[in-house]
Amino acid sequence: LKKTIITVSLPMIFLLLPFVPSNRLAAQQPKNQDQEIAEKYVRSALTEQKGYKLLGEMCTMGPRLSGSANSIRVMRWAERKMKELGFNRVWMQPVMVPHWVRGDVEKAEISKSRGFNGRALNVASLGGSIGTDPAGITAGVLEVHSFEELKSAGSRANGKIIFFNRPMDIGEINTFRAYGEAVNQRTQGAIEASRAGGVGAIVRSVTTRYDNVPHVGVMYYNDSIPKVPSVAIGLEDADFLSEALKCDPQLQVHLTLDCKTLPDTQSYNLIGEITGSEKPDEIVLVGGHFDCWDKGQGAQDDGAGCMQSMEVLDLFHRLNIRPKRTIRCVFFINEENGTRGGEYYGQYADTTGFEHVAAIESDRGAATPRGFTVHGDSLVLEKIRGWLPVLQNAGIDWVRSGHGGTDISRIKEAIAQIGYVPDGQRYFDYHHSDNDVFATVDPREFELGAASMAVLVYLISEYGL
Amino acid sequence: LKKTIITVSLPMIFLLLPFVPSNRLAAQQPKNQDQEIAEKYVRSALTEQKGYKLLGEMCTMGPRLSGSANSIRVMRWAERKMKELGFNRVWMQPVMVPHWVRGDVEKAEISKSRGFNGRALNVASLGGSIGTDPAGITAGVLEVHSFEELKSAGSRANGKIIFFNRPMDIGEINTFRAYGEAVNQRTQGAIEASRAGGVGAIVRSVTTRYDNVPHVGVMYYNDSIPKVPSVAIGLEDADFLSEALKCDPQLQVHLTLDCKTLPDTQSYNLIGEITGSEKPDEIVLVGGHFDCWDKGQGAQDDGAGCMQSMEVLDLFHRLNIRPKRTIRCVFFINEENGTRGGEYYGQYADTTGFEHVAAIESDRGAATPRGFTVHGDSLVLEKIRGWLPVLQNAGIDWVRSGHGGTDISRIKEAIAQIGYVPDGQRYFDYHHSDNDVFATVDPREFELGAASMAVLVYLISEYGL
Repeated sequence: LKKTIITVSLPMIFLLLPFVPSNRLAAQQPKNQDQEIAEKYVRSALTEQKGYKLLGEMCTMGPRLSGSANSIRVMRWAERKMKELGFNRVWMQPVMVPHWVRGDVEKAEISKSRGFNGRALNVASLGGSIGTDPAGITAGVLEVHSFEELKSAGSRANGKIIFFNRPMDIGEINTFRAYGEAVNQRTQGAIEASRAGGVGAIVRSVTTRYDNVPHVGVMYYNDSIPKVPSVAIGLEDADFLSEALKCDPQLQVHLTLDCKTLPDTQSYNLIGEITGSEKPDEIVLVGGHFDCWDKGQGAQDDGAGCMQSMEVLDLFHRLNIRPKRTIRCVFFINEENGTRGGEYYGQYADTTGFEHVAAIESDRGAATPRGFTVHGDSLVLEKIRGWLPVLQNAGIDWVRSGHGGTDISRIKEAIAQIGYVPDGQRYFDYHHSDNDVFATVDPREFELGAASMAVLVYLISEYGL
Repeated sequence: LKKTIITVSLPMIFLLLPFVPSNRLAAQQPKNQDQEIAEKYVRSALTEQKGYKLLGEMCTMGPRLSGSANSIRVMRWAERKMKELGFNRVWMQPVMVPHWVRGDVEKAEISKSRGFNGRALNVASLGGSIGTDPAGITAGVLEVHSFEELKSAGSRANGKIIFFNRPMDIGEINTFRAYGEAVNQRTQGAIEASRAGGVGAIVRSVTTRYDNVPHVGVMYYNDSIPKVPSVAIGLEDADFLSEALKCDPQLQVHLTLDCKTLPDTQSYNLIGEITGSEKPDEIVLVGGHFDCWDKGQGAQDDGAGCMQSMEVLDLFHRLNIRPKRTIRCVFFINEENGTRGGEYYGQYADTTGFEHVAAIESDRGAATPRGFTVHGDSLVLEKIRGWLPVLQNAGIDWVRSGHGGTDISRIKEAIAQIGYVPDGQRYFDYHHSDNDVFATVDPREFELGAASMAVLVYLISEYGL
């Protein structure tokens, strides 16, 4: 561009804009060399598929619910892998975590009805729920679609199992928004059921896929209100139960659960890093959460985010790229039911004398990359947006202001908390259920997630924020 | 914005740009009303999933290879569906198409070797290939990775079956580009094999998925060079054959095919439309190709594009939106092995007195939306890009200059030929093979394709180009 002085009005600037290719606008800072490096990360990820293979191996080892012995066993495996990959430092940060166990029995069936006796309902205890007496509870069922409807039911809720049956809004393109709008039935259902006089809660699974698989997740109690047991139910059985209630409003359900909460127990965050060559005290963090629910394999939520993060560091090794700043991979424990890992790490980050330049979290599944959301000031957002011409080489189409991630939200000193955003259309088909298995992970889509985070980590490490 | 006159240098303009949210730049023309309408299209598509259900129904009816009786049978079904959906006009445009048939036998096995005799190879005849004598051919095998390597082999190619074993480059993020770089082995392999003195061609399948499924597709002959038979081979068997050749370079393969080309036969393009309320002589076309290969179900390629296009028109009906311009849905025949449907339609478009404002093609599978590529001048491109704030409601992240589509490329008068671009990471896992079945289609991703095209069709119909 010649440095010509011209006179334009502001509106004229805006008229000019659409004719400048958008890639060019932001392409001032990064050099072509960065684009070449981005292509190398992508090529190495797609051809070697190393993180994908590690995820497959991890998924054979059983679920990683916080507090479980198996979660520790699998974390030891991950620790060995980090060491085998040659990270400069690998350590575990002790974290005390809640210890809820599902137990052996989670059973619901229609017990007193006109014609439905003995019909089983596919349910699963929600995380944190109390169990029932060994003999179970038997009660009538009140179906509602909102807490308001429950309140207006008045005494009809007394002694009933409350059946929260409001569907997730599948007409909403943003599945995470639809999830957010539906999930209070699961998180608050037992509290509201009990407050209304109910003896239990059955919650329609929050999912985009129509099948009969219960989707679990955390639920809460309020200490001032009696605790009642709470379960998720598969969609087909939710619709069946709703129809059955129309035929026989007096039908009763027999519910038996032996889940329970044990005392808090010792667990860990797993941390590995590659030391920066120029600014080793400045950290660029990338991570996911190690724990998952005890249904399925936690492949999408969030085994993928962990194995992608581990591969980010390995990509630096494979390509023989020494980062200027320290790249740290963190597997947070207990995101699902307590977020203690994020809490402990945040406290640790405040006290170590290291500076966290940025923290990036992958916890939205393993689908194809779309963008990054940035929690930071507008200058930081625009700096990262300026790297789009480089990030596009790894399938990233946008950088927007938004939430970074649950675990990294506690790292308050980070200049930017950044969320990796893959496509979200299929995520809630799998989420918190037996559907969340390795077979649902596409290797190329998974690997582009690792590559796109590696490219962003590289740029932050090179240029700072 | 106040109309303040300020003085800036050109470089200063570029410094300012990154701080203007990109959505705002392009948001001048469309009204909020358009965004609301876009949301309605999306909601209706995601909740009713009508096109998805129609695709499921169509996929049960068998493949639709050009010239086959079944392709006509399924097209009659589609014609009935268009009429049931209440399109204003539905008709078939006669098209003479090539008529290649696979026959009953496609068989390859290792016949003379040290230790591999009788080992079958999973092959499938390539579209257009001649068959062998009923007794088959038996010949040694020469493995090559490029036409140059074949030329330099000289007389070693004489009497051999040439085994083209160059893999698709899975390190390339753009799978369509990687396909383009690998596919000449399939399209030109028989010509080059014969030119070198070979008696047949075995071609490594062009696919991103590592399995043993042959991926077929069109191949060509050159009239001045003897025709030799040509097959695709699954990747596992391609690697096996390569290893076997290292053990025994003299091994022979016995190949028997009874595929053949029959005389051209009568087929059709299927066309349906909703008449425009203000400019009925101006056409906004949306379509895909109806034919597919006779492996799998042609669900992704291109049943999806057809059923999405049909649903575009139905979305106008469902939402009671009368388009200003005529919306025409075209199912082109014979894209796979002749593109006669596109050719005939282009001739027809030149002669009817209708004006094609735009033509949109969906022929890249049913995955989640990414963008649109526009073949048209820069003003048209920028007009469409200005609609991004509306299109984003349906998952579209970008509008770029690029190829519109094979079938619509013959509609020369169209101001814009536009390609719908879903995510491409998984497409070549399925393409032209037994893997291309309805079960691979995600309902939400498919439906967002229909909705995003409907929104674009709506905007063009309302505002022109």
